[in-house]
Amino acid sequence: MKALGIDVGGTKIYSTVIDEKGNIISEVEKYSTPKVLEEIKSLFKEIIKRHENEIDVVAFATAGAVNNENTKVISSTGNLVEGYRTIEFDKLTNKKVFVENDANAAAWAEHIIGASKGMPNSIMLTLGTGVGGGIILNNKLFKGKSGAAGEMHFKMYPDKRRKCTCGSWDCFEAYASGTGLKKTAEEISKNPDITTYDVIGGLELKDELMTKIFNKWQDDILAGIIGLANLFDPDCVVLSGSMSEFVNTQYLENETNSQIVTQPTKVLKATAGNYAGMIGAGLLAMGVN
Amino acid sequence: MKALGIDVGGTKIYSTVIDEKGNIISEVEKYSTPKVLEEIKSLFKEIIKRHENEIDVVAFATAGAVNNENTKVISSTGNLVEGYRTIEFDKLTNKKVFVENDANAAAWAEHIIGASKGMPNSIMLTLGTGVGGGIILNNKLFKGKSGAAGEMHFKMYPDKRRKCTCGSWDCFEAYASGTGLKKTAEEISKNPDITTYDVIGGLELKDELMTKIFNKWQDDILAGIIGLANLFDPDCVVLSGSMSEFVNTQYLENETNSQIVTQPTKVLKATAGNYAGMIGAGLLAMGVN
Repeated sequence: MKALGIDVGGTKIYSTVIDEKGNIISEVEKYSTPKVLEEIKSLFKEIIKRHENEIDVVAFATAGAVNNENTKVISSTGNLVEGYRTIEFDKLTNKKVFVENDANAAAWAEHIIGASKGMPNSIMLTLGTGVGGGIILNNKLFKGKSGAAGEMHFKMYPDKRRKCTCGSWDCFEAYASGTGLKKTAEEISKNPDITTYDVIGGLELKDELMTKIFNKWQDDILAGIIGLANLFDPDCVVLSGSMSEFVNTQYLENETNSQIVTQPTKVLKATAGNYAGMIGAGLLAMGVN
Repeated sequence: MKALGIDVGGTKIYSTVIDEKGNIISEVEKYSTPKVLEEIKSLFKEIIKRHENEIDVVAFATAGAVNNENTKVISSTGNLVEGYRTIEFDKLTNKKVFVENDANAAAWAEHIIGASKGMPNSIMLTLGTGVGGGIILNNKLFKGKSGAAGEMHFKMYPDKRRKCTCGSWDCFEAYASGTGLKKTAEEISKNPDITTYDVIGGLELKDELMTKIFNKWQDDILAGIIGLANLFDPDCVVLSGSMSEFVNTQYLENETNSQIVTQPTKVLKATAGNYAGMIGAGLLAMGVN
C-alpha cells in the first residue's frame, strides 16, 4: 500500500507519498497555507488529483484535535483559516481519507520507525513555537473520549502569570515552547527585545545570564516531564520539534528518574525526522502498527 | 463468585466479603495496622482463614503501586511497615490472590457501580490526607508500563515552594490534599496553628479570610483538573475522599469546561462509599468489568 501524506500547518503545507515501511517515496512538495477556506480545499484537491494513481489512501496530519473516527477537526485551530473545522476531508476525493492531529501522527511515526520503536508506552512532546503532544499507550494512539487527548495544557504556576495561546493561563505550552523561552528570557533579563537566538547563542558562549535563562526554561520542561512520568508511567518521553535540539536529554532523564514515584523512564530525542507528521499519518492510514 | 476484600491503609485495615454485583455481604471488620512485618502477615492469614470457606478469591486494596501482574507492591509505602514490599501476597493462602492499589481499586468501584458507571474514560482523585489517583481508559484500569501510573504527583508552582511526601517538590498532592489545605491556610493567614477544621468551619460561617483560603485551595484542585482534562479528554473526573465533601463540583466543572481545549467533561462526587477500595479490588479480582 501507499499513502499520500499531507501535513497542514499554520504557514506551510507539505505533501509526499509514503510506503508501508514509513519511507518517503516521492519528492516532498511545499506550499504556503492559503488563508481562504475555498482555496485551502482547492489546494487539497489539486494535490490529491496529482497523486491519485499512485496511492491507496490520503492521510492528513493537521493542526487541531481530530475526532475518533479520523474524519474531521473538532477543535478551533487559531493558526488556520476560519471555517477549517467545517472541511469534510472525506468529500475531497473518492479515495479513502484518514485525518489525524499532527503531533499524534508524529508520535506514531516515532513509535513505528523512530525513537520509541518497540516501546508500548510513550509520550511525545513537540517543542516548537508552541508545544504539541502525542501519547501512545499499550501500543495504541491514545485519543480520549472525543479524540482530543494529549493536549499539553496542564498548568505550571497556576496564579495567572502567563496567558496561553489556548485562552487560559499558565499552561505547560506557555513555558516549554520557544515562545515560552522568549518570555522567560524577558522576565529574567528585564529586556523586552531579547530573543531565543540570544539565549541559545549565549548558552554556547557560556554566558552566565543566558545560561541561567536557558536552565530555567529547561527546568520548566523537566517539571512537566516529571508530572507526565508520574501520571502515565511511560517507557519513554520523546522530545521533537525545533527547540528540542537544545535540551540535554541525559540531564532531563536523570533528574526525572530521581524525582518520580513510578518506575524509571527514558527521555529521548525524536529520530523520525521533520516529516514525521506525514509519515505517521500515512502509517496510521495504512493500518501499520 | 465471592471475594474477600482486604483494604490495607497506614492506620487501619478493613475486610469484608463482596459479591459480583459489588455488594458487601458480610460484616465489615476493622483492625489497627500492625507495625511489625510478621504481625501484618499473620493478620492477613488470620482474616483469610476465617473466610476461606465462603470465598473464591482474596482481593487486597493496598497503599503503594502494585505491579501489572497484581501480585506485589513495587513502590515504597511510607505509611506502612518496613519490608511491606517483600510480602508475597499469593503465598499467604491457597486461594487465588489479587492485589491492586487502593485508589485504582476505588476508581474501578466507581466505574462499575458508582459515579462513573457507563463512562469509558474517567479519572478519580481521592482527596484525603494525601491525594490518590486512579485512571480508567477505554473501560480498562490504566496501569502504565510497570503498574504505577496514576500518581497525582504533577507539579504545581515548580519553584520549590512545598516539599511533597514523595520526596520531590510542589506536587499536586501537596496542594490539593487536606495537608495542602492546612499549608495554604498557614501561608495566607500567617498563623501556624490554623487547622483544616478552622477553614471548613469558617467557610460555613462565610468568614472572609477562611473563604479566601478555601477558594485558593479549591482553585489549585481546579488547576489540576484542567490539566488532567486536557491530557486525558475523559468523560468525567470523580472526586472522593474525606476532603471531597467540601468542594463545589458544579463550580469545578463549569470552570474546567470554560478553560480546556478538549471536549467538555463532568466533575462528580464519588458514590461507591467508604469501602470502594475493597469493593473495587473484589470486582477486579472476580473479573467483573
